[in-house]
Amino acid sequence: MQRLEVEGIDEDEKLRRVVKALNQNPNYFTTSSCAGRIALIEVPGVGDKEHARFVAKWHRRVGEEEFFDAVKGWRGELWLTVQCPIIHVSCRDLGSALHLLGVAKECGFKRSGIISVTEKRVNLEIVSTERADVPMGVDGVLLCDKEYLRFLLDRFNELLSRSKEKMGKLCEKLTSET
Amino acid sequence: MQRLEVEGIDEDEKLRRVVKALNQNPNYFTTSSCAGRIALIEVPGVGDKEHARFVAKWHRRVGEEEFFDAVKGWRGELWLTVQCPIIHVSCRDLGSALHLLGVAKECGFKRSGIISVTEKRVNLEIVSTERADVPMGVDGVLLCDKEYLRFLLDRFNELLSRSKEKMGKLCEKLTSET
Repeated sequence: MQRLEVEGIDEDEKLRRVVKALNQNPNYFTTSSCAGRIALIEVPGVGDKEHARFVAKWHRRVGEEEFFDAVKGWRGELWLTVQCPIIHVSCRDLGSALHLLGVAKECGFKRSGIISVTEKRVNLEIVSTERADVPMGVDGVLLCDKEYLRFLLDRFNELLSRSKEKMGKLCEKLTSET
Repeated sequence: MQRLEVEGIDEDEKLRRVVKALNQNPNYFTTSSCAGRIALIEVPGVGDKEHARFVAKWHRRVGEEEFFDAVKGWRGELWLTVQCPIIHVSCRDLGSALHLLGVAKECGFKRSGIISVTEKRVNLEIVSTERADVPMGVDGVLLCDKEYLRFLLDRFNELLSRSKEKMGKLCEKLTSET
């Protein structure tokens, strides 16, 4: 599982370039980032993120076989989720934050916004819209069949690919600015 | 369907009070708001919101019978979604926007942020985290059975209730400030 995640991050050259371009600009530094992922999460109950456990996570499209392999051996409640890319950027001032917010929105990161302002920095969250969450079963029992799982996986892979395209646009835009 | 929605909005006294409290404050006016809802949406393909059509929407917990009644007569691809409350607020200046952002976060609206700044106003989006989206079938054919639908509905109702609790907290906080 750990191996898959590392592979995912390594493959995601686009995010690395985006982070590099931002950190090379004296107006910005990144404080956290995720390239977007598909994950299987086990929770004791709805929305109990504090006690959530990752059953599997992939930062790339997921194949049917590995997916069905992962949907084994869990307890509690199982959710399948696709999370869009997210980047937190500390900006020098409001002007530089608004400039980056504009660039992010233009590239399709429509849920972006300034999430806090301190005396010294303005903190921006760059986030997109490709998100889906599905509860799949409870107490170790899947409540949906293989055909439906295949359908879910197909749609979730599609959402992840779309968010990667947006990351590509952001990468292009930011690297052309430097 | 239309009737259900109006009933839902009418029931949502909390949101109305929040909107009223904000508009009574000279620092703020609201530009749009939604109390949170459960919706069945028909789309031609994944993420094609432009051509989406609401099959049903409810701003309150949904009963099993009305839900099963609604899951009939659709085409394309059917998604079930729970959308958390969202309020857009135009704020007088950065200070008043940051104050409201702090209040919103304290009440659990953790995805809130400043989404744009003009010469005259600072625009804040107040939004929470209770969100789930599930594709249920394609070409008019449901790919999940009744037991699974019941499970989905239960979880989605739970998420909606949780978001309403947060709206209650926000309502309490804002009305106590005025």
